Amino acid sequence: MRALSLAQSSVATTLQQPYLLFLGDVTELAYAKTALGLRDWAGDLCIGEFTCPGATVSTGLPTLTPAQARSAGAQSMVIGVANAGGVIPQKWIPALTEALEAGLDLVSGMHVHLEDVPQLKAAALRHGCRLVDVRRPPAGIPIASGRPRSGKRLLTVGTDCALGKKYTALALARAFRKRNIDVDFRATGQTGILIAGSGIPMDAVVADFAAGAAEMLSPAADAGHWDVIEGQGSLSHPAYAGVSLALLHGSQPDVFVVCHAPERKVMLGFPDFPMPEVEDTIAQTILLGKRTNPAIRCAGVSLNTSQLDEASASRLIASECERLGCAVADPVRGGAAFEQLVDACLA
Amino acid sequence: MRALSLAQSSVATTLQQPYLLFLGDVTELAYAKTALGLRDWAGDLCIGEFTCPGATVSTGLPTLTPAQARSAGAQSMVIGVANAGGVIPQKWIPALTEALEAGLDLVSGMHVHLEDVPQLKAAALRHGCRLVDVRRPPAGIPIASGRPRSGKRLLTVGTDCALGKKYTALALARAFRKRNIDVDFRATGQTGILIAGSGIPMDAVVADFAAGAAEMLSPAADAGHWDVIEGQGSLSHPAYAGVSLALLHGSQPDVFVVCHAPERKVMLGFPDFPMPEVEDTIAQTILLGKRTNPAIRCAGVSLNTSQLDEASASRLIASECERLGCAVADPVRGGAAFEQLVDACLA
Repeated sequence: MRALSLAQSSVATTLQQPYLLFLGDVTELAYAKTALGLRDWAGDLCIGEFTCPGATVSTGLPTLTPAQARSAGAQSMVIGVANAGGVIPQKWIPALTEALEAGLDLVSGMHVHLEDVPQLKAAALRHGCRLVDVRRPPAGIPIASGRPRSGKRLLTVGTDCALGKKYTALALARAFRKRNIDVDFRATGQTGILIAGSGIPMDAVVADFAAGAAEMLSPAADAGHWDVIEGQGSLSHPAYAGVSLALLHGSQPDVFVVCHAPERKVMLGFPDFPMPEVEDTIAQTILLGKRTNPAIRCAGVSLNTSQLDEASASRLIASECERLGCAVADPVRGGAAFEQLVDACLA
Repeated sequence: MRALSLAQSSVATTLQQPYLLFLGDVTELAYAKTALGLRDWAGDLCIGEFTCPGATVSTGLPTLTPAQARSAGAQSMVIGVANAGGVIPQKWIPALTEALEAGLDLVSGMHVHLEDVPQLKAAALRHGCRLVDVRRPPAGIPIASGRPRSGKRLLTVGTDCALGKKYTALALARAFRKRNIDVDFRATGQTGILIAGSGIPMDAVVADFAAGAAEMLSPAADAGHWDVIEGQGSLSHPAYAGVSLALLHGSQPDVFVVCHAPERKVMLGFPDFPMPEVEDTIAQTILLGKRTNPAIRCAGVSLNTSQLDEASASRLIASECERLGCAVADPVRGGAAFEQLVDACLA
């Protein structure tokens, strides 16, 4: 364990919004996941799309050149596509350079670093724009102190990866805001960071600093302020539980909501690992979370019922609410059950 | 959570032994901790010391020039001193270059990277020697698979940092070897890596890869082979619990030994956090560890009784053994209690 802070890659984590979405020369929908996710989750932040010749996928947003987008208010162009190698193909360079020439920051969630592409680095310098890699943690992350911070915090906790922790946190933050509560959504993954315009990619932080990163992400705030923090992984995940525990300890949540996919029998990509039970996840989260916040409590459960029809989903939500003795809802379906989950969070 | 392996700094983790210990121009004992630790824990691997003009601290080992040390069999010169800035002062460069000229690898646990010092990089290339930073994780660490591996594994688990996890693992590995058991000590921190000649600095691994690093550290082995793995941090530590959980999940230990400092009332450097109880640490380790090894069991407790006299230590060891119902020993004191702890590990 180290006592000194390690120098890390220095990149601002605050993104300039709204965005122009760049689709490259993409021909497969799956590769445009980031662009489509931004359109769906943060449509009001996306004012158009821009492609290279050969692209066949569209977000349905207006096609704009970088200059047109800039005139319409865009501040950044987001690379909204992935490709097999995770690299930036040469044929994208003219389009990416055009964005920098138009005065847009360039934002990427790819593995390759924009700074490592000489033409882009030179163009960014020339035009006074930024190259922002959302996979890179910010500089100066401290070792966690464990000290309590003012303000309220909610963490979404998963029984597994990829079952709605980000969506649940976004939906709860939106619901809090509707009730005139002072709230911030705190992003811990790259899509969340693109949506929120800031955040820390927890998975990319050096292990010793992971809890410190979580402390940095939800700083001391007014007593009535809520941070709604996007969870990562699962305490039961054979690869990522350490990230989940660091996020739990550093977030010091007053309240957590367990996110679960009831139809999933085994962990995603880990077929030898059965899904943990919701009640065991609640118990483990309290057991471990109380180390940094003795008042931690479970407000309820967010069920991902996307595999069920409306009637089956309603029946399951009602029976799980009865069985677990707490609020249960699917935020995508909303309704009275979701409002009760919001009530329970704020109780 | 990422699906692809991230390119990490590429450095071999295997060190060439024995060592010449470099003390720079050190005048304060505390700064020579690494050299003194190597002398104490791995004296048979240290054939001499080498200093710059002005040094006043000595390990007591023979003073040798790099050329003399090379003739006597040395393979590497280890920078055995730290300094306030964590940097390599210019006045050390001639001595470090002399080691490379003599054909010795240069090994460092400092924050600065040897590769970033142009004179050293050039000299290493010229003489075909390596610059090895033991704080850098190896390249190619995978995401953990959670798959069981053949062979037996023991992990030392702490109630806090800096109370004997490394020492306990070294002592147990030595005791296993004395009983003709095929055993490897697996190092997870820089001093342990210097002693073992290989290992992975767990604290420097990117969080998503931490459990994968632990899997890499103790690979599949013969059924009768034991890996004795140096623990890190504590599941109750407000800053480092994530590292501890990743190490627990990835190590998949069959057996663990809890290391505890009975006189310590609060966590080191975290005065608001009381030390966890040994029995709670045992319960938590089993609860979480069974996710990747359902057969995990606690073999006993290693008590750091360095603050007690012989009689008080014996009384405490006996009463804790009685109270906890398991083997309890101080490996530094050894004796029958320690042999019983070894028996319990191998039972």
